[in-house]
Amino acid sequence: MSARLSRPASQSPERPGFARWLGTTNDVTQTFLSAGGVPDLISMAGGLPAPELYRVEEIAALAQTVIRDHPAETLGYGPVEGLPDLREVLARRFSSADLRLTRDNVLVTSGGMQGLDLLGKVLVEDGGLIAGQSPTYMGALDAWRPRNPTFRKLDLEDPAFDAVGALAGARFAYTVPNFSNPTGRLVGLPLRQALVDAARATGTWLVEDDPYGQLHFDGAPLPRMIALSGGDSPGPVYDGPVVYMGTLSKELAPGLRIGWVVAAPAMIAALTAAKQGSDMCTSGVTQRVALAAIESGMVDRAQPAMVRLYRARRDALCAALAEHLSDRFVWEEPVGGMFVWAVARDPALDTDRLLPLAMQAGVCIAPSSVFDPAGQDRRAMRLNFTLNPPDRLAEGVRRLAAALRRL
Amino acid sequence: MSARLSRPASQSPERPGFARWLGTTNDVTQTFLSAGGVPDLISMAGGLPAPELYRVEEIAALAQTVIRDHPAETLGYGPVEGLPDLREVLARRFSSADLRLTRDNVLVTSGGMQGLDLLGKVLVEDGGLIAGQSPTYMGALDAWRPRNPTFRKLDLEDPAFDAVGALAGARFAYTVPNFSNPTGRLVGLPLRQALVDAARATGTWLVEDDPYGQLHFDGAPLPRMIALSGGDSPGPVYDGPVVYMGTLSKELAPGLRIGWVVAAPAMIAALTAAKQGSDMCTSGVTQRVALAAIESGMVDRAQPAMVRLYRARRDALCAALAEHLSDRFVWEEPVGGMFVWAVARDPALDTDRLLPLAMQAGVCIAPSSVFDPAGQDRRAMRLNFTLNPPDRLAEGVRRLAAALRRL
Repeated sequence: MSARLSRPASQSPERPGFARWLGTTNDVTQTFLSAGGVPDLISMAGGLPAPELYRVEEIAALAQTVIRDHPAETLGYGPVEGLPDLREVLARRFSSADLRLTRDNVLVTSGGMQGLDLLGKVLVEDGGLIAGQSPTYMGALDAWRPRNPTFRKLDLEDPAFDAVGALAGARFAYTVPNFSNPTGRLVGLPLRQALVDAARATGTWLVEDDPYGQLHFDGAPLPRMIALSGGDSPGPVYDGPVVYMGTLSKELAPGLRIGWVVAAPAMIAALTAAKQGSDMCTSGVTQRVALAAIESGMVDRAQPAMVRLYRARRDALCAALAEHLSDRFVWEEPVGGMFVWAVARDPALDTDRLLPLAMQAGVCIAPSSVFDPAGQDRRAMRLNFTLNPPDRLAEGVRRLAAALRRL
Repeated sequence: MSARLSRPASQSPERPGFARWLGTTNDVTQTFLSAGGVPDLISMAGGLPAPELYRVEEIAALAQTVIRDHPAETLGYGPVEGLPDLREVLARRFSSADLRLTRDNVLVTSGGMQGLDLLGKVLVEDGGLIAGQSPTYMGALDAWRPRNPTFRKLDLEDPAFDAVGALAGARFAYTVPNFSNPTGRLVGLPLRQALVDAARATGTWLVEDDPYGQLHFDGAPLPRMIALSGGDSPGPVYDGPVVYMGTLSKELAPGLRIGWVVAAPAMIAALTAAKQGSDMCTSGVTQRVALAAIESGMVDRAQPAMVRLYRARRDALCAALAEHLSDRFVWEEPVGGMFVWAVARDPALDTDRLLPLAMQAGVCIAPSSVFDPAGQDRRAMRLNFTLNPPDRLAEGVRRLAAALRRL
């Protein structure tokens, strides 16, 4: 008979250790996502939309309607690559005179993050080289860690930046041209063109991650790199090196977990094979809600109010920073996106040490270490301005100033 | 200026090749999922529920209600590990006198498939050994291919099966004890106990994948292996070696993409770190619908009708097989699940060659090769009986018999 009831687990052999990459991960995203539980905490850490923008009644009604009208598509298994109608609508949404897209260029993903995960799966093997804008989105680092990549920094701020040298030999280059996360900076047109040209010259895939593209507050939007690369396809369908990624998380609601990848059909096919073994397919319920929200114009109608709200909040944050922190930090006012990147005047200031003091003072920030693949940059912090109203942003900055006096 | 408009893509350098594992994947699941497009095809290939069982109006109304009542949870980002209330309900659902679970034992996943993907990410590195019931669920093979594992077959049918020897050295052992996919067989109690004992003795994780546990047609359900292992935890919370996986896809609706993992807290924490970089979190909309469907009793209420319908369909399929195919195949009548596993009397019969003939005749089956990690077993086929009504099942078997005459 089994001795299971009398032998405690502690006498069992050691269980297998977890994969190596788990030793290198961080729990900052989990801390941010759960920070809502701390009473009166002002979180400027995450990249969260303003919840008052959610079209609650409209989306609730849509959800009921799409399940009733499309029971097989919403409640059954769907195609791995996404519902054909949604892929079609997305292909039209990003097509232009310079860029011919069909549904074969589109994969629907379970949020923007899944596109990054799938990309790692299809392109990176142990030690594979990723060239990435630095500092960069920590979620992308999380997505690729299980593939044990090596990382080459793309310093797009360097006036001597050599795009061909920077991309050569990489499995892919990762960029966020619109309001880069975490710096909020816009990558200019000449640099976009240079990256596209370098992708063509080196044969490297060029990832254009664009969650913030619709959050453009001032001036005209710049062309997408995938549109700049539209002429790379001799045939009737885009077949160039740019892998464009987007999401409804910032424009409509993150809880739908709907994102997309637009790329050459061969890349879409590879990502589809990876998605099959990742989650089989994205929920038909949320795909159909997303489709109805785009087709009914709800997404486009929501944009002006969103831009107005976020512009005012950016202004409020920058004004508070100017009043309380300009002696300790410098920053650029971003023309869009969700974040201000504040760099300490004192190179020895350590925002990893600032974080717990800030939490004690009732404000949460994202320290620069989590955006550095090597985890070493301690001099800056990312401040979100979309989640909180102006008075809370001002109060958050005052708390941050108080925490700094105790550093 | 850029030469992009004048230089065709074909003159560009080669793009980086895709990861090795993509060369070993199969497109059978995609074929199955898209087989709905072939007119009048009778698909007995996939593992699809009967769509007439979907509680369309109830789920549609729930979706509207949960978005209205919980806008922040449904439309915003949620905790990586799932909504606390849903984790709590799942912990209660699987707790028993022998098994003490809290929400720390539960991870919500985006469908059952995601649990398999995350498991590979946290436990398998290049060449890592997986011991798996064979033949096995092809989706599991798809999920682990990107980790380049090696595979050891667990032949649970072998009377001389040595569980300790079979599990020793493996990162984990993968089993589907209830109505194993693809064979439909129930793993008996002595073997369940032997596997649990072997997991304890070897320190190997033991995966109990249980999508079909509620589809029990005849006799009493057997205890889950995680319950048999409940005494392995000296403390107040389960901390044993069994990793139990479930899903609402068979019990309620696959389109919700809601699954779960129940395991030791350390395993849940590792899987959560992997999920963070995979899709950040599962949709709050579908999580809240799942929670409401479980709490309102809808899921439990749906079970008797589902069991009655599927039992009748199993009987119809087996009767048709007895009438038309008993000279060519042998099978066991399964006491639950979704599949009959039919093995050819002639060891030289090749179901890979049968598949295209069957498709021409208007019926789709799953050939045994796709359930063999080595792709070599060609002698059997898996037939689904849940999707089609009895008359279509009978017609499907007649078409299959016609295809066999042309083989």
